[in-house]
Amino acid sequence: MFSKIKRAIDKSFNEMVDIRRYLHQYPELSFKEEKTAKYIANFYKQLGLPYQEKVGGNGVIATLKGGKPGKTVGLRADFDALPIQDEKDVPYRSRVDGVMHACGHDGHTATLLVIARVLKEFQDDLPGTVVFIHQHAEEMNPGGAKPIIESGALDHLDAIFGTHLWSGIPVGRIEISKDVLMAGADSFRITLHGKGGHGSEPHETKDAITIGAQLVTQLQTIISREVNPMRTAVLSIGKFHAGTAFNVIADKAEIDGTVRYLDLEVQAQIIEAMEKHIKGICLANDITYTFDYAKGYPPVVNHKKEAELVMEAKDSIEDIQEIVEVEPSMGGEDFAYYLMEKPGAFFFTGALKESNPYPHHHPKFDFDEKAMPIAAKTLIKAYLNYQEASY
Amino acid sequence: MFSKIKRAIDKSFNEMVDIRRYLHQYPELSFKEEKTAKYIANFYKQLGLPYQEKVGGNGVIATLKGGKPGKTVGLRADFDALPIQDEKDVPYRSRVDGVMHACGHDGHTATLLVIARVLKEFQDDLPGTVVFIHQHAEEMNPGGAKPIIESGALDHLDAIFGTHLWSGIPVGRIEISKDVLMAGADSFRITLHGKGGHGSEPHETKDAITIGAQLVTQLQTIISREVNPMRTAVLSIGKFHAGTAFNVIADKAEIDGTVRYLDLEVQAQIIEAMEKHIKGICLANDITYTFDYAKGYPPVVNHKKEAELVMEAKDSIEDIQEIVEVEPSMGGEDFAYYLMEKPGAFFFTGALKESNPYPHHHPKFDFDEKAMPIAAKTLIKAYLNYQEASY
Amino acid sequence: MFSKIKRAIDKSFNEMVDIRRYLHQYPELSFKEEKTAKYIANFYKQLGLPYQEKVGGNGVIATLKGGKPGKTVGLRADFDALPIQDEKDVPYRSRVDGVMHACGHDGHTATLLVIARVLKEFQDDLPGTVVFIHQHAEEMNPGGAKPIIESGALDHLDAIFGTHLWSGIPVGRIEISKDVLMAGADSFRITLHGKGGHGSEPHETKDAITIGAQLVTQLQTIISREVNPMRTAVLSIGKFHAGTAFNVIADKAEIDGTVRYLDLEVQAQIIEAMEKHIKGICLANDITYTFDYAKGYPPVVNHKKEAELVMEAKDSIEDIQEIVEVEPSMGGEDFAYYLMEKPGAFFFTGALKESNPYPHHHPKFDFDEKAMPIAAKTLIKAYLNYQEASY
Amino acid sequence: MFSKIKRAIDKSFNEMVDIRRYLHQYPELSFKEEKTAKYIANFYKQLGLPYQEKVGGNGVIATLKGGKPGKTVGLRADFDALPIQDEKDVPYRSRVDGVMHACGHDGHTATLLVIARVLKEFQDDLPGTVVFIHQHAEEMNPGGAKPIIESGALDHLDAIFGTHLWSGIPVGRIEISKDVLMAGADSFRITLHGKGGHGSEPHETKDAITIGAQLVTQLQTIISREVNPMRTAVLSIGKFHAGTAFNVIADKAEIDGTVRYLDLEVQAQIIEAMEKHIKGICLANDITYTFDYAKGYPPVVNHKKEAELVMEAKDSIEDIQEIVEVEPSMGGEDFAYYLMEKPGAFFFTGALKESNPYPHHHPKFDFDEKAMPIAAKTLIKAYLNYQEASY
Repeated sequence: MFSKIKRAIDKSFNEMVDIRRYLHQYPELSFKEEKTAKYIANFYKQLGLPYQEKVGGNGVIATLKGGKPGKTVGLRADFDALPIQDEKDVPYRSRVDGVMHACGHDGHTATLLVIARVLKEFQDDLPGTVVFIHQHAEEMNPGGAKPIIESGALDHLDAIFGTHLWSGIPVGRIEISKDVLMAGADSFRITLHGKGGHGSEPHETKDAITIGAQLVTQLQTIISREVNPMRTAVLSIGKFHAGTAFNVIADKAEIDGTVRYLDLEVQAQIIEAMEKHIKGICLANDITYTFDYAKGYPPVVNHKKEAELVMEAKDSIEDIQEIVEVEPSMGGEDFAYYLMEKPGAFFFTGALKESNPYPHHHPKFDFDEKAMPIAAKTLIKAYLNYQEASY
Repeated sequence: MFSKIKRAIDKSFNEMVDIRRYLHQYPELSFKEEKTAKYIANFYKQLGLPYQEKVGGNGVIATLKGGKPGKTVGLRADFDALPIQDEKDVPYRSRVDGVMHACGHDGHTATLLVIARVLKEFQDDLPGTVVFIHQHAEEMNPGGAKPIIESGALDHLDAIFGTHLWSGIPVGRIEISKDVLMAGADSFRITLHGKGGHGSEPHETKDAITIGAQLVTQLQTIISREVNPMRTAVLSIGKFHAGTAFNVIADKAEIDGTVRYLDLEVQAQIIEAMEKHIKGICLANDITYTFDYAKGYPPVVNHKKEAELVMEAKDSIEDIQEIVEVEPSMGGEDFAYYLMEKPGAFFFTGALKESNPYPHHHPKFDFDEKAMPIAAKTLIKAYLNYQEASY
Repeated sequence: MFSKIKRAIDKSFNEMVDIRRYLHQYPELSFKEEKTAKYIANFYKQLGLPYQEKVGGNGVIATLKGGKPGKTVGLRADFDALPIQDEKDVPYRSRVDGVMHACGHDGHTATLLVIARVLKEFQDDLPGTVVFIHQHAEEMNPGGAKPIIESGALDHLDAIFGTHLWSGIPVGRIEISKDVLMAGADSFRITLHGKGGHGSEPHETKDAITIGAQLVTQLQTIISREVNPMRTAVLSIGKFHAGTAFNVIADKAEIDGTVRYLDLEVQAQIIEAMEKHIKGICLANDITYTFDYAKGYPPVVNHKKEAELVMEAKDSIEDIQEIVEVEPSMGGEDFAYYLMEKPGAFFFTGALKESNPYPHHHPKFDFDEKAMPIAAKTLIKAYLNYQEASY
Repeated sequence: MFSKIKRAIDKSFNEMVDIRRYLHQYPELSFKEEKTAKYIANFYKQLGLPYQEKVGGNGVIATLKGGKPGKTVGLRADFDALPIQDEKDVPYRSRVDGVMHACGHDGHTATLLVIARVLKEFQDDLPGTVVFIHQHAEEMNPGGAKPIIESGALDHLDAIFGTHLWSGIPVGRIEISKDVLMAGADSFRITLHGKGGHGSEPHETKDAITIGAQLVTQLQTIISREVNPMRTAVLSIGKFHAGTAFNVIADKAEIDGTVRYLDLEVQAQIIEAMEKHIKGICLANDITYTFDYAKGYPPVVNHKKEAELVMEAKDSIEDIQEIVEVEPSMGGEDFAYYLMEKPGAFFFTGALKESNPYPHHHPKFDFDEKAMPIAAKTLIKAYLNYQEASY
């Protein structure tokens, strides 16, 4: 059956491209993607599949019940765009000023819609149930995944799979991990409130720069001494701005940075340790502070068995040259929340357009559309492998 | 004779005020004070005293040879203004847009001119020679004192005296030191050239902020460990600017600061030590740097005997309530160069205008003009005391 | 056949205990273990197996060629003891003053000898060749593994396996890793040569303590900023000794520490970075230093396939309750060198003696002898699995 | 009269030497100097001057009332010895094992006794009253000066003078200050209580060395940023001892040091700042500490007028080549307490023995006895000058 499905996908390539290019011309920002949601809903309406709109916001969820017994497996695609001005010179460039599908979510959506249409043809022979999860607002923390989960619409899932088309990876290559695929990434701002004064009278001041320097130095010891060396963690200060003149002691230092981690215990440990070090340094120097810590998406942690099921797809999909296990990349993806609730796996589908190799979020970003059928086949095979492995 | 001189000064108060207010309305910037120089030269021309123009720039030097034998004593007044918009609401406010006598040099000039006119009356009875030094460009390093000295015009001086009207000191009070009156003040900029990169990949970067923090911390040890604790020295970082985003490791840190010192050996030691520490930290972290150190005016170091001669003036000048020895103030004054060549003393003449107590360099700065005759009498008495002490 | 072999091992338990207890009473120090080597050689002589003495020092290597075709697989046991006074109260305690088998190498040797004797019985049916590697001098860097390898005696091996009886793990449990099993561990001493002097005159000194403090702080940034956060590395200062009196500035600081790492690139990077930081700090402070870095054994990095072959042994050995994958432990084991040359795996065989739970290298160390047959069966099964997997 | 007194002193040189050498042979430790006190008391008994024993401990105070009206002036000499083994090879070396007059207090006592005997001869012509203060226990904080003052025995003094024979200054030279002559010197011990552990597991520990390094670095900022740069202060760490093995993270760091200061406000500020920094660093790192700060003697701050009276002695004492004003030396001398209560001055009398130039507190310390009459004359002239200046 999978051979037939693959052929059906290949035949649907033009349809995928059409959908993708249509969406590309009419991008919508996170949490405002109402027309796109309506477009998706209409697709399922015409297809004759039951669907639910406005799930946890603008989410759309459709369901295909196969004719054979089996598990319920979710496939997810996100559909929001970014506040970036499209600078590509192609017929399908964005028609919305200052908004652009600069991350490939249009491709994710086209892929998933065509998967649904193709699988519908095979409905009687399919095991279990496929749930098509079209998620809004991936690009903007707190994202759409969380409210969709909280809506309860996915409670009945047994597993979930998803992919990201990736312009940094050649077509034909899939990257995955059996453990952490993407690290957690948070941001913070520390403001030290010292006391300014003349550069010649340090004793009348609380020198925010000297104190800030001590803090920057001490914060590094959280990584080198406090976090288990077997765990991965990064604490980087990206901005240190203090003072306005060479001869005036600064009354304030603004220190911005980011924290990266692969598990939530390390995240919690770092936040607690940062607060402790900041408090101690400020006590030592008799100053006050504010500490704003913004949690980003948690790490994307694949489940081993489900990741292996994705990896096994290679053997039966000719378009895939290789599926490789990679070390965690940094970034952020709210697919993480699904994986905290359900077994599943997320992977990167190579989509490098060699003639236009711009990175994601770049005004000239584009991807090779031939990646879409590969993503489609892999997701379908993951679903089938999961059914098989469950019996 | 000094009693008569004092009365003559008192009678000339209105003249002083007129001159000062005229100059106040027509301020000129450092190195561009040509009309003011011409005004001064004309004054001496009409007075019938020999003078020299364009000394070391816009400097004007006049000479009064007394009828009695004695030493040659210089009295100095500076006459440049500042690039500040006058915001005072007085009839004599600046008529030049964006330029203002915001430091009292107009008062210094008026005082010295009237001294010259009054002393001329007593020429036959005066011991030695008085040299009236009208110096341009005190406000802008490298200043006018140095080229005037280098012109050789002061080679024949035996001693030199000068004063600064000071709005932070009440009228009737004079502040002086027998040693350092004003500290030396330099500025510097250190630029650390690291290597930027993504906040999650510190190992691919040379983190300019972490390295800069180490440097800031280490530089403090120059003061606490390397400079003789009996010597005074300050090293303050006023600005630390690095980085543009919380999640991007900074490729560059700009670190600006000031160094204060009371003697040139300490200055030399600090410059050498800074270079050494910067070089070492950069070597330790495998980055490069630039280090620009701009020497300001050296410390104003009074000569003990001459300072005591000024202090003795108190006994015979009724307007002076007190002459007090003070600890060195910070700041900068190129009178320092005269004192590196010749015996002499510099002092602050209290000039607080209680109804308008703004500090020097403030757009509303003004001073109490009653300070001018006090300054005049003290300078004259210092000259007389010096003559007396020399026999 | 393996069932018969297991029974034969079980029947040989008393023999294992006898050999082990004999060796326990006559321990010999690293590189001086001549009588033990002779004992081993005699064993093979009586068994009628070809053997080679004095391999790379005191090493003994015997060979058993099976009757079936197959690969050549090495099994390794070390046999040196430690300079520790045996404080156990057992009949088989050490009879050599100040020398003790405090790490279980006596057990390793007894296990391997009995393996040889048992396998000899099955010679005709065995696939390939088994090489019994009795290695001297594991306890003392540079160890015996390296010269044995360099002797060429193992050039013909296809794979190698080894185990360590471990008193910290309960009997019946085996611990292994498919990647790094044991981290590399090095030691270093940094001596900063400052200039001493009176506590009141820091400017006459080069304060080794303040400088040492800067260095300690900076060295931590090697871990937090310079090493790839995905790699594991630890740099700990264990000793900081400087100064003799509260009021005398120290002329010298001795700083001892250890570095741990899981791969040799990280080791090389840390050594280079340490030298760079030390040099920079010393330049910054105008002092000299000595830096002695002693490399320990490299990490023990198992080969994945061979580790999996060991793990599969569980299914057919009833005495094994579990074989678990563990994170790298610290320590040091020159089995590392074999694994740098040949495929293979090393594992820990649980040997906790609950009535005497002292750690390795403790004067009361002992282990549960029932661990020996488990180790023997697992090594044999690893060899058999390897043969099977090779066809 | 002073000429006669000078001659009388010169004639008494041998007597001075005899007394000094006798005392040198029978030194007594601080607070245990009972025989020496008795010796002094006997001297005054035989001299026929009223005296008081056991003042504030072992102190002895005698009084000589002159025949002329005048002020009451104290002259002080201390008389305790040190726990040092005398290693000089001279007939008058210490006869008490392990105890030695290694600081010249024997000379101070001999000088003051002879002053008393000589002045007695001139009693009728002397103005005011001379009080001979023989103080015990200068060498051991809290010293003898404080209880003597608290006894009230000096309440009636108008002024006080004292000197220290000093082996680092050539005979004929006197060193003095019109302000601070000797800095205050305190000691401290900070113990950081972290949590030890294996060098490979920093996350299970609280690394006392890394934390201690941060503290050492931060304490320096008290000097460079918190104390007024016009004030002198030193904070030196003399000992940093932590850890016992290179591969074990230290659970404790002992940090000993000294603080020097010229005025008590700075001392108070530093103590408070140290506590604050220690507390903050410990909070930042979640560890505990103990902080023991032992105040030494306060600074010896001369009164300007009285110091000038000593300096004027030069003109009438031929043996004095120069009296020079010096910067504060470090050290400690409980004469400080007298000067906190009464006007007065303390000075160093050059006593370098060129053939035996060992420093104070050295086992071979000695001084040139010709310094004693110079000290005597200077003290007497200070007393006379004071009387004169008071009328």
